[in-house]
Amino acid sequence: MSDQDPLVIFTPSGKRGRFAIGTAILDAARQLGVDLDSVCGGRGICSKCQITPSFGEFSKFGIDSKPDALSEWNSVEARYDDIRGLPKGRRLGCQAKVLGDVVIDVPAESQVHKQVIRKRAEAREITIDPAIRLLLVEVEQPDMHKPSGDFERLQAALEAQWQVKAEASLPVLARLQPALRKGKWQVTCAYHVPSGQILEIWPGYFEGPLYGLAIDLGSTTIAGHLCDLATGEVLASSGLMNPQIRFGEDLMSRVSYVMMNPGGDVEMTTVVREALNTLIGEITKQADLAPENLFDMVLVANPIMHHLFLGLDPVELGQAPFALALSGSLDIPAADAGLKMHPSARLYTLPCIAGHVGADAAAVALSEAPNLSEDLVLIVDVGTNAELLLGNKDRVLACSSPTGPAFEGAQISSGQRAAPGAIEHIRIGADFEPVFKLVGNDLWSNEAGFEDAVLKTGITGICGSGIIEAIAEMRMAGIVDASGLIGSEAQVGTPRCISDGRTHAYVIYEPADGPKITVTNGDIRAIQLAKAALYAGARLLMDKLSVDSVDRVVLAGAFGAHISAKHAMVLGMIPDCPVKKVTSAGNAAGTGARIALLNLASRAEIEATVGEIEKIETAIEPAFQEHFVAATNIPHATAPFTGLRAHTPLPDVSYNAASGPRKRRRR
Amino acid sequence: MSDQDPLVIFTPSGKRGRFAIGTAILDAARQLGVDLDSVCGGRGICSKCQITPSFGEFSKFGIDSKPDALSEWNSVEARYDDIRGLPKGRRLGCQAKVLGDVVIDVPAESQVHKQVIRKRAEAREITIDPAIRLLLVEVEQPDMHKPSGDFERLQAALEAQWQVKAEASLPVLARLQPALRKGKWQVTCAYHVPSGQILEIWPGYFEGPLYGLAIDLGSTTIAGHLCDLATGEVLASSGLMNPQIRFGEDLMSRVSYVMMNPGGDVEMTTVVREALNTLIGEITKQADLAPENLFDMVLVANPIMHHLFLGLDPVELGQAPFALALSGSLDIPAADAGLKMHPSARLYTLPCIAGHVGADAAAVALSEAPNLSEDLVLIVDVGTNAELLLGNKDRVLACSSPTGPAFEGAQISSGQRAAPGAIEHIRIGADFEPVFKLVGNDLWSNEAGFEDAVLKTGITGICGSGIIEAIAEMRMAGIVDASGLIGSEAQVGTPRCISDGRTHAYVIYEPADGPKITVTNGDIRAIQLAKAALYAGARLLMDKLSVDSVDRVVLAGAFGAHISAKHAMVLGMIPDCPVKKVTSAGNAAGTGARIALLNLASRAEIEATVGEIEKIETAIEPAFQEHFVAATNIPHATAPFTGLRAHTPLPDVSYNAASGPRKRRRR
Repeated sequence: MSDQDPLVIFTPSGKRGRFAIGTAILDAARQLGVDLDSVCGGRGICSKCQITPSFGEFSKFGIDSKPDALSEWNSVEARYDDIRGLPKGRRLGCQAKVLGDVVIDVPAESQVHKQVIRKRAEAREITIDPAIRLLLVEVEQPDMHKPSGDFERLQAALEAQWQVKAEASLPVLARLQPALRKGKWQVTCAYHVPSGQILEIWPGYFEGPLYGLAIDLGSTTIAGHLCDLATGEVLASSGLMNPQIRFGEDLMSRVSYVMMNPGGDVEMTTVVREALNTLIGEITKQADLAPENLFDMVLVANPIMHHLFLGLDPVELGQAPFALALSGSLDIPAADAGLKMHPSARLYTLPCIAGHVGADAAAVALSEAPNLSEDLVLIVDVGTNAELLLGNKDRVLACSSPTGPAFEGAQISSGQRAAPGAIEHIRIGADFEPVFKLVGNDLWSNEAGFEDAVLKTGITGICGSGIIEAIAEMRMAGIVDASGLIGSEAQVGTPRCISDGRTHAYVIYEPADGPKITVTNGDIRAIQLAKAALYAGARLLMDKLSVDSVDRVVLAGAFGAHISAKHAMVLGMIPDCPVKKVTSAGNAAGTGARIALLNLASRAEIEATVGEIEKIETAIEPAFQEHFVAATNIPHATAPFTGLRAHTPLPDVSYNAASGPRKRRRR
Repeated sequence: MSDQDPLVIFTPSGKRGRFAIGTAILDAARQLGVDLDSVCGGRGICSKCQITPSFGEFSKFGIDSKPDALSEWNSVEARYDDIRGLPKGRRLGCQAKVLGDVVIDVPAESQVHKQVIRKRAEAREITIDPAIRLLLVEVEQPDMHKPSGDFERLQAALEAQWQVKAEASLPVLARLQPALRKGKWQVTCAYHVPSGQILEIWPGYFEGPLYGLAIDLGSTTIAGHLCDLATGEVLASSGLMNPQIRFGEDLMSRVSYVMMNPGGDVEMTTVVREALNTLIGEITKQADLAPENLFDMVLVANPIMHHLFLGLDPVELGQAPFALALSGSLDIPAADAGLKMHPSARLYTLPCIAGHVGADAAAVALSEAPNLSEDLVLIVDVGTNAELLLGNKDRVLACSSPTGPAFEGAQISSGQRAAPGAIEHIRIGADFEPVFKLVGNDLWSNEAGFEDAVLKTGITGICGSGIIEAIAEMRMAGIVDASGLIGSEAQVGTPRCISDGRTHAYVIYEPADGPKITVTNGDIRAIQLAKAALYAGARLLMDKLSVDSVDRVVLAGAFGAHISAKHAMVLGMIPDCPVKKVTSAGNAAGTGARIALLNLASRAEIEATVGEIEKIETAIEPAFQEHFVAATNIPHATAPFTGLRAHTPLPDVSYNAASGPRKRRRR
């Protein structure tokens, strides 16, 4: 490059350089490190390197970009335009050559590392750069005088043309010779960057796309997203129940099953792998694909599901010191885990953080990136076990709290899964009368048309988020005191408070036939224990950081997505924080899996992050017990609720006092 | 180390150094690079580091080695001696500590890199250093405050204690936790050096040995040797017919079968893998082992068998330019090739030299090491295809000659495989009367007791080496002329020359019942074509090196082991060379496989050598055709035969001339 050479400026990057006349735009881009895609390596086949020259006087760049600054539209471009069509104004970067000063725009779809914008404002963008790349290569033909295998010449071509070292399994090797001859010595390889393995070979130019699956393997449900690895687009989503439920509803009962039944681990491994294959079948069908189209899977799970899926006996996770067989990430052939995808497909599992804080929590950390946060964030993934992450860019702590299944509607008298017919939202008025909404129905129960709308499903129970709202509303209405006790009809002043053995229950709904839907004192006790465990975990982490409050709270998990922040705080599930600073991350573990599927660098990133996260084992921290005991009460909230309150319970309401709860609340 | 520190001298290496008082002999050996074994890393468990202190005045070393120069016999040694017994005078190198100047002898069995002496004088020794090592490690126990997987702690231990980076498959990972707990946090790993994979884990100290198989996969037979990987000892040998014979006797007919029958390659891959599993079953049974005891296999084969075994379609090898799908070596899980050994067992295949010169020829090159030879050596591996290597330490050439199956007794009227009953050696007297010996029988046919000895088998035919001797003897006796024509009874003067259509045949044996055993003119034509191809290949290589003779000839292969050098030269199979310089290497391909099994470094060595061997493709060399045509004649030999003669045929004998062949020969 000399000062006399034409100047080339790329937008939007602003990268610039001088290049000899006749330099292809693709080569100029590569030399400057401009993010311009190419699968065919500049052969005018793939059209990935499309660029838009910008002509005119660019005063900000100080150059005049004239139409003759590029070589003329050539036959390769014309042929490509004929067959596939080039958008107006576009050129192929490998064909257009520099003749004078020029400004070149790289459209978003020509960038290798496309960004996928996530919906939530605080969420990071995902840069699409998957573990598997399509590489078109031109292979030297065999020469009797220099005998070498077709594969060795393919390896040499990949090294020369793409600077990668490649290996291949026997089945892929077996397809090489016909592919080379059919493709006239050009083939496209699906190249897995971390292992250096060629996963598949196509004759000539294969445009793709390749597909992958992000799986969140939960104790109760298995959720999968099928993604286009080139665009990041989610083409199908599917979920099914974890069939291991028949061996035990919660994780510890599954570990017990293994302890009691020799070979029980193998049995559970088999059923969960079968379930994944069922899911693979369903989700590919949904997307009009076949399992063989799937080349990569990223799977996240809690430690016990992680072990059971991988065929590792989880018994050590059931007892101190909760030793994982494997804590690191794994990148193996998917077939090794019995998965039926493309025969060469890969499986990546995220690392586990600790014996109780799994690869699912690592995925949450990847998605929510507390380690990059400026402010102090508490991330809570609520499930049978709640995983908590607390920290910022300086330091991140993690722990797990044994909340039990109450938040998921188990152990709740009228509890049920979040399905049509379940009460999901509830408000209790000053008259102690409830109004509620059902899952999958936008009408409140006192709105016109509600009854017609629920004819089909009926009103069948309360789901996890419903019970939280119900108890919080009961507390705010003065039906429940700080200790969690429901008042009697006489104490509270409503016939909805009925006798329930030695305690009371609050009737939300009484159908013409069938059982009443109530919140019993037993229900409140179960929720109190669960929320106290959750809160104590958060407090323990806050102690370790010597803080009394957090800047923001992220609720993760399907359950977290449906919890009302206000009610969770009334209940004392989470520490004090402005309500608007409590956000839901949806299925953050699934999102983390999807990030690791679409962006190779994120795998190394989360592996490093997990190594730096400080693990706190709640089981051996005396402070956890103290916080737990202190957190069983239900703090009282003044109305209007702002979220800015001390966690310390307000002076208790008491049904025996002259000033009843109702009066107190109105004060 | 200071000048004041005691001096330690190791024998037989002569390595010496000064060490601080209290240094363990094992540590001193390691620091000096003395070859002293240890599996347990100095824990007094494995006893591999046994040494013998030599006491007395060593004037050649200038030191006085006194009995108090080592620490006293300690409890670890006493316990070991009690349980397993230590030979008299031996100490454990990890327990005995330096107190003064001392001479330490390292017995052969304590050396890591034991040498296996091969029987033939010119053969290289094999240094035992297999690809799989047993490593005892002590793994840190889990700690809830620093959660990490048991596997990650095993990795850290292997890196700290043995300086290796290790990975493991899911089934091995699944066995880790119970092994660690049973072994009280000590486990022995079978570590595969090239892949870094842990193949198996045993609780505590596992002494071994591990076993491996060296396989020579031929077109006709499959031969295997089961070796102790620690000593190199061959514990069992077994062979079976290649079941692919039913798809075609020779390689090209198998390639044709694939061309004619879609899926025929898969069929042949299946049967040959089944046969290998049968062989694995038989050979392990012989050695009182199970297939699961086998951890490594090295396999060599010609290119077509190599491809068929690996599941690679061989059709490209059937036509120019004879492109191999894969020419390099392969180191993969044995299970990938359908082999039933230990589930984690490895498979290594040697590289192929060219489309016609396979991994078997590479194995011959490894065994016979022409690239290390001072003198010019021609190595001939005779089979359906003959592979030839010619060269010395400066340069090595290779080619393959299409000899056809005549040398193996096929296409020969009375031909048969080398089995009991087959004529293997033959001499024809001045009276044209033959005497012969059968396979598996030491008596000549004119010796007393011969008839009784052969009652059981009968005299059934001629094997490959028998036909070579027969034709050479017939030529020397004057029964056959230089053009290969058998004279008539009248021309030669013996009733053993009978009419056989338009030509004649020579009767070797005429049983009371059943067909005569004869050599027909058709037989001679077949052998002439085969030997001319072989000779032309050798000539072609000699042309390339611009030489007219070679210093020595090595005959390899089962057939090569049985050929009489003298007769081969009379026939003109091999170029001129002193007879005593013609040696047999036996199954050199099998030996090469065994070397690669027992010595890891030899794999890199042969991979490099193969890259340097110059490949000559006979099919496209016009000179090959010329040499072939010129070599069809059978050169006449003067008696006594010395081997030192010009290859140019002597003036032809002619049955029409007055001076018959008999007269001429006696001249």
